Amino acid sequence: MVKDNCKILDCTIRDGGLVNNWEFSVEFVRDLYKGLSEAGVDYMEIGYKNSPKLLQGGNAGPWRFLDEAFLREVIPQKTETKLSALVDIGRVDEHDILPREESMLDLIRVACYVKDVEKGLELVRKFHDKGYETSLNIMALSHVLEHELEEALKEIADSPVDVVYVVDSYGSMDPGDIVKLVAKFRSLVPNKQLGIHTHNNLQLAFANTLAALQEGVTFLDSSVFGMGRAAGNCNTELLVSRVKSTRYEVRPILGVIENHMLAIRDKWEWGYNIPYMINGVFDEHPRTAMALRASDNKDRYLEFYDTLTSPESIVAPKKS
Amino acid sequence: MVKDNCKILDCTIRDGGLVNNWEFSVEFVRDLYKGLSEAGVDYMEIGYKNSPKLLQGGNAGPWRFLDEAFLREVIPQKTETKLSALVDIGRVDEHDILPREESMLDLIRVACYVKDVEKGLELVRKFHDKGYETSLNIMALSHVLEHELEEALKEIADSPVDVVYVVDSYGSMDPGDIVKLVAKFRSLVPNKQLGIHTHNNLQLAFANTLAALQEGVTFLDSSVFGMGRAAGNCNTELLVSRVKSTRYEVRPILGVIENHMLAIRDKWEWGYNIPYMINGVFDEHPRTAMALRASDNKDRYLEFYDTLTSPESIVAPKKS
Repeated sequence: MVKDNCKILDCTIRDGGLVNNWEFSVEFVRDLYKGLSEAGVDYMEIGYKNSPKLLQGGNAGPWRFLDEAFLREVIPQKTETKLSALVDIGRVDEHDILPREESMLDLIRVACYVKDVEKGLELVRKFHDKGYETSLNIMALSHVLEHELEEALKEIADSPVDVVYVVDSYGSMDPGDIVKLVAKFRSLVPNKQLGIHTHNNLQLAFANTLAALQEGVTFLDSSVFGMGRAAGNCNTELLVSRVKSTRYEVRPILGVIENHMLAIRDKWEWGYNIPYMINGVFDEHPRTAMALRASDNKDRYLEFYDTLTSPESIVAPKKS
Repeated sequence: MVKDNCKILDCTIRDGGLVNNWEFSVEFVRDLYKGLSEAGVDYMEIGYKNSPKLLQGGNAGPWRFLDEAFLREVIPQKTETKLSALVDIGRVDEHDILPREESMLDLIRVACYVKDVEKGLELVRKFHDKGYETSLNIMALSHVLEHELEEALKEIADSPVDVVYVVDSYGSMDPGDIVKLVAKFRSLVPNKQLGIHTHNNLQLAFANTLAALQEGVTFLDSSVFGMGRAAGNCNTELLVSRVKSTRYEVRPILGVIENHMLAIRDKWEWGYNIPYMINGVFDEHPRTAMALRASDNKDRYLEFYDTLTSPESIVAPKKS
């Protein structure tokens, strides 16, 4: 598949940080940036730009609360690979955001649910005015009513945002679903670039990304070795191998996997497994499967399946 | 995706046997048959019907050289789930094959390369005359020249075979490739049912199977937990979950995974990993990656990649 206008955005540090509570060494992040740069990857999402003042978990390491001075130490020399950060509605202090010409960041992505699109666009406008490229990532699209989505997309069309993302938060979609959603986005926001962010609960993250690319989506999220929350994301090494372009080269990504990811994978779990698959089949947030995998019953698949499927397993709380 | 005319064929024992040299206990095979029956899976491929007289490796356990008397012991009571066996050209003694009415088997599948299609059809005719359902599985389609394939398909159209399989032996295809190949098969063998057998080198086995189903392919190969040679196959649990039909039920497959496959997986390796991915990217037989994974250098990805990509790594043999 030859697509010379697409952009690969690697979110290993940002989405992968949801796996290991952002326990990434500076050395690893530097090597990853070097590897992604040599591989021709267009963007590296280096973390969240949330504010520790607005969010519990201030001990989660620097990648969750990116600081410009720190970023300059980590990456003294930028390459052609741009840097991005994600912010969540209500968790970002806009005063923390420098004007782009003083910042290491190029792209700020705002993640929100469909009900918060107005708030999301308010942030987008501020970052846009500071000179950044911007995206709005609408999460949990599989739980959105059609008319809600259509109203949101109309507002987005009138905003200055550069990229609008289709996000399969629960890893429950297949390529046919993606094609239909992308068609709706294209018809309602024809003036924007589109992006895709997938999860691998049904082993469809890569296939869904290819389906989106085929339909004209240009921003493709991925992570090295698939490292991302729960079942993980589309694998950067697959995307770089398969998207034919003179820009991309898989060898440097293989080096990052060999030198770093195997050790991280020994310590932390992500990727396809049965509880995450079950969540994907039921189109549910992975939190129940994540709790199971962190418990002593992590391989009790039948019990887990029965809990999710038996209405009698949920009883009303007793009044005292 | 609602498809009520498709058939799922589980080949855990046959293709999975290529992983563990057919070290499956009778108890496991019985439990698998029970689970597949309860799940509504249409066929279970219980092994190879090759002849130990014609093939090295007579110590590989009964599933490689199926014997009718033994099969009757293993499965005293057949369910609605039919049994199939695979044979290879030149490795089967046709005199070992009973008439269908005396056999436990319902379907005999003949695997061959395109150059051997005539030999394959010769076997197909014999099994057809003995009353079996038959299929011809053309392997390594990604290495076949277009005119060779077209000539072979014309011969197949004139044969009594019931099902013709598209086989992505090297796990190198994506859904777009599958759609094109299926269209060619449909136009040249319009009178046959089609089947699909995939490998997961690029994490596309399930997506490729869904793409084939969408294009009208009715026989879908899979294996429980993806157990199959090298990167493995499309996962039965995914197919059973996603193909909407009143027949299919995933819970019994989850039981087989919980009770058996985790222990097998602890002992044997299959599924997506970087060397298998590299073979898939280069559209090559997995033997080089399998050799690497069995060596002390199993995670030397860069060295492996360089060996496959550097012409200077291959030198002519020295004359003495």
